[in-house]
Amino acid sequence: MISKKGCVVLLSGGLDSTTTAAIAIDEGFRCHALTFDYGQRNRWEIRSATEVANRLGIEDHRILKIDLRTIGGSALTSDNPVPKLRDLHGTATDIPITYVPARNTIFLSAALGLAEVVEASDIFIGVNSIDYSGYPDCRPEFINAFQKVANLATKAAVQGGVKFKIHTPLISLSKSQIIRKGLSLGVDYSLTRSCYDPGQNGEACGECDACQLRLRAFRNVGMVDPIRYLPKHPAR
Amino acid sequence: MISKKGCVVLLSGGLDSTTTAAIAIDEGFRCHALTFDYGQRNRWEIRSATEVANRLGIEDHRILKIDLRTIGGSALTSDNPVPKLRDLHGTATDIPITYVPARNTIFLSAALGLAEVVEASDIFIGVNSIDYSGYPDCRPEFINAFQKVANLATKAAVQGGVKFKIHTPLISLSKSQIIRKGLSLGVDYSLTRSCYDPGQNGEACGECDACQLRLRAFRNVGMVDPIRYLPKHPAR
Repeated sequence: MISKKGCVVLLSGGLDSTTTAAIAIDEGFRCHALTFDYGQRNRWEIRSATEVANRLGIEDHRILKIDLRTIGGSALTSDNPVPKLRDLHGTATDIPITYVPARNTIFLSAALGLAEVVEASDIFIGVNSIDYSGYPDCRPEFINAFQKVANLATKAAVQGGVKFKIHTPLISLSKSQIIRKGLSLGVDYSLTRSCYDPGQNGEACGECDACQLRLRAFRNVGMVDPIRYLPKHPAR
Repeated sequence: MISKKGCVVLLSGGLDSTTTAAIAIDEGFRCHALTFDYGQRNRWEIRSATEVANRLGIEDHRILKIDLRTIGGSALTSDNPVPKLRDLHGTATDIPITYVPARNTIFLSAALGLAEVVEASDIFIGVNSIDYSGYPDCRPEFINAFQKVANLATKAAVQGGVKFKIHTPLISLSKSQIIRKGLSLGVDYSLTRSCYDPGQNGEACGECDACQLRLRAFRNVGMVDPIRYLPKHPAR
């Protein structure tokens, strides 16, 4: 039996990272999943990530605690309100307040550290073209620059000759295309969560950017989003 | 009164980062100091960083918790023994087991996030030519690559036109030169700690790489290291 090549997948338990993990598995990788407990408002994310990892048969799932509230600067790590029903047709100069300063740089850095420890050279991150329009650290030029850092920063690269690669299989896909891809791979989206500001029992709010994008994408695919929404916002 | 320009300084409470903070202050910056509680063996580091920040008059000192034990892979974040009395004449292919995978990438990423939040464009890190010989993430090419990432990753750079600069004032200095520089700026090295494996009351072991480098540098400067060492290793 040939042992599979390992990779590290950043797994938030959201729609994008779950699909990304399924793609990595479909490409023949053995996944080491990394989830961050970064003081985010949505504490349900971590539970979703665990359920997703279990369902996908990922044996090594690590939850890394980093308290980004120490840094602050985002609606997602503070008690400031999350914006609702915002215009989604943002441009590159219209970065939402849900932006977390340097988040993907921090997450990729830790993924790089884990990759080095588990002797993997491939890192998967679910950035995509929708995020691209709002978040600077979801753009291909950022990913390329980070890949250069990875290949200069590590013992594995400098001493071991490893060439790190950052995989972004969703980067040019729309949310609807991501869902179609995931469905074709058997992803169970009922386990995933996207809401920035869920209700007491984890129900999605239906109003934040993440919910709106998700609801619209499921409508475009012609199916009902299988997760639970607060009563006033049924998934239709 | 002209308000000073802010900067972020990575402050471990060691000899290098303390000197770096003193240099940033001497250059006219108002420092935001960032210390990591990353599960390191040397719990005294964090206390030293606090004492140093107080002594330097740094008003904003943040201690960011990130549990790098989740990732592992280093003698500094595990219960494996720290190497003692190792040959210090290492080359670039001789990376010590005290290397922490991707540590400076992770630390600089968080510093970048903080810089964005406090609206600073300057980040100081005390990497130097001694570390350079052993750790890949202390080399100028790594720092330059990270600076490129910083200027692609952030809202401040992409939307605000900020140009981030990573300052490495120690990068071409020897440990003795660093100490001479610090002394000229009034640094009190008795507050600093460098040991990887201190005794119960925080005394330096005198045997690990960090202690050996430090002791040799103070000898070269012609002074006795003012910190406490375990009885069998007096600082001479």
